[in-house]
Amino acid sequence: MSDLPTLAQVAAAAGVSPATASRALSGSVRVSTATRRQVYDAMSRLGYVRHRAPRGVSARRQVAAITAVICDHLPRLFSEPFYTRFLSAANAVLEEHGTQLMMATVSPTATTVPSFTGPVLLLGARERHPLPIALSASGIPLLCIGRPPDSLRLPYADVDNRDGARQAAEHLLLSGRQRLTVIAGPPQLSVTRDRIAGFTRLTREAGLPDPLVAYGDFTAASGAHAMQWLLSHAPGLDAVFACSDPMAAGALQTLRRARRAVPEQVSVIGFDDAPIAQRTVPALTTVRQPVEELASVATRILLSGEMRRDPILPTELVVRASA
Amino acid sequence: MSDLPTLAQVAAAAGVSPATASRALSGSVRVSTATRRQVYDAMSRLGYVRHRAPRGVSARRQVAAITAVICDHLPRLFSEPFYTRFLSAANAVLEEHGTQLMMATVSPTATTVPSFTGPVLLLGARERHPLPIALSASGIPLLCIGRPPDSLRLPYADVDNRDGARQAAEHLLLSGRQRLTVIAGPPQLSVTRDRIAGFTRLTREAGLPDPLVAYGDFTAASGAHAMQWLLSHAPGLDAVFACSDPMAAGALQTLRRARRAVPEQVSVIGFDDAPIAQRTVPALTTVRQPVEELASVATRILLSGEMRRDPILPTELVVRASA
Repeated sequence: MSDLPTLAQVAAAAGVSPATASRALSGSVRVSTATRRQVYDAMSRLGYVRHRAPRGVSARRQVAAITAVICDHLPRLFSEPFYTRFLSAANAVLEEHGTQLMMATVSPTATTVPSFTGPVLLLGARERHPLPIALSASGIPLLCIGRPPDSLRLPYADVDNRDGARQAAEHLLLSGRQRLTVIAGPPQLSVTRDRIAGFTRLTREAGLPDPLVAYGDFTAASGAHAMQWLLSHAPGLDAVFACSDPMAAGALQTLRRARRAVPEQVSVIGFDDAPIAQRTVPALTTVRQPVEELASVATRILLSGEMRRDPILPTELVVRASA
Repeated sequence: MSDLPTLAQVAAAAGVSPATASRALSGSVRVSTATRRQVYDAMSRLGYVRHRAPRGVSARRQVAAITAVICDHLPRLFSEPFYTRFLSAANAVLEEHGTQLMMATVSPTATTVPSFTGPVLLLGARERHPLPIALSASGIPLLCIGRPPDSLRLPYADVDNRDGARQAAEHLLLSGRQRLTVIAGPPQLSVTRDRIAGFTRLTREAGLPDPLVAYGDFTAASGAHAMQWLLSHAPGLDAVFACSDPMAAGALQTLRRARRAVPEQVSVIGFDDAPIAQRTVPALTTVRQPVEELASVATRILLSGEMRRDPILPTELVVRASA
């Protein structure tokens, strides 16, 4: 295994100074989104892991296995594109390191949780669920994907959900939409709260009332159902921001049945930039989240054992036909 | 947890004598397929586990976790319907028992394999791969899904692949097809060899030359490619037996592009009865394999720790429109 790249190399590859690269990685607001993206792109390209121990101080132990523990129903592991993308990318990094990926699901309604040994990547952690608390109490190396629930002080890696939702709201407002609605994920997830917060902050700045929110579970079926609910409670809506691409695809189905033209009458924006976003009719305008990069960065951090800061990877609006 | 049902209860539920039920479970050829199916249906319905220890002799230990080790590329875990169905059904049984399902993939090209602790369900084991040998040497409780490779003497559970393929050949011959071809899975899998053997045995009995065989990897893309290869090497073919439904769906695409009408000019039969079989055009005639029952039976056997005989679950031709 070759040596990991230094921050100076990342900065050089990104075309910025080491000080700027360092600020970008610490999430400083003094660094523009574009610069942060350049730094993260370079980081991802070079396989940079932040804050590794100084040379010679701790020879990194070879980790035999990392377990991805997913707080979701097992069949969702196979149907949700986020998991497919995340786990495939995490596995690619682990294979390079000769480390085995183990996967386990824990039901969102579980009241007791199994114990795990070895480092854990925790996905889908929910508020008031025993899993994150049990894992953090067990003393095993743990990295949360997404901001930890219940204000637990756990190391984590996340994408910039607030800014992604902000970009979606901005795009809708700039195209003249006034009656905005949201199809959110489960309210127990920090990702849901962050996306609603980022969206609502901008609509408030624009002097609009808070958007009506319907909650789904990230599936297409829940998106179709939530869209039906929104149409009956806000018949004059002219835009919907769905917090996942499958839910946006479901919303498109409902709108087609309700004979609401997209984007002429209703603008639809998804979140993910999953493969499905290019296959919907019309093709989906969506917030791209760098799932593969998130998996890669998180896995490298967990492998390095140095989890002192929490990277937030940038998100980006991808404009297609639906908004 | 309530007591497990007895073989006598299974026999009563199946409407057969206990002796017949016992013969059915031992795979005796003196029991008709229909009777065997009745017994297995009853077994599955009642949650019967064969050859559990006599009462009081061994209180079964609670198993904390079972690991499903899948010898395949990780992204295939998410795209292959067999895995989705199998793992979801296995997980449902384990949840009832308060046991955690862990999942891990091992690359088919791996030359070294990680070690696992606790009972293992082994899926996709291949000839001349280090995984089954390493697992069997490790002394952990192990159950192979499908006949073990390399003639290893491992406990296993399987579906009747030979008989399923035999039924497919019989259906094609009875409908007057003469130029039969096969799209098989990877040749390193016992399931592939069993399906080819069951199919070829009947075509030989009918006095036909052995069918031309193209090998795929169970994916739709590989089925489309294999169909192309068969058309160029056996342009006069009038039937194809694809060893998975996704491969059959891929074959249908190629035949459509080649303007060969299905089933008028070419009959197509798949294997699985996966959800996709009802969505192809025309709908797929296919060999149903009881994946959920296989998962349930295998998981219960592994939980019970009593693995003295190897159940073979019956398969069944489901006739739709493609053959």
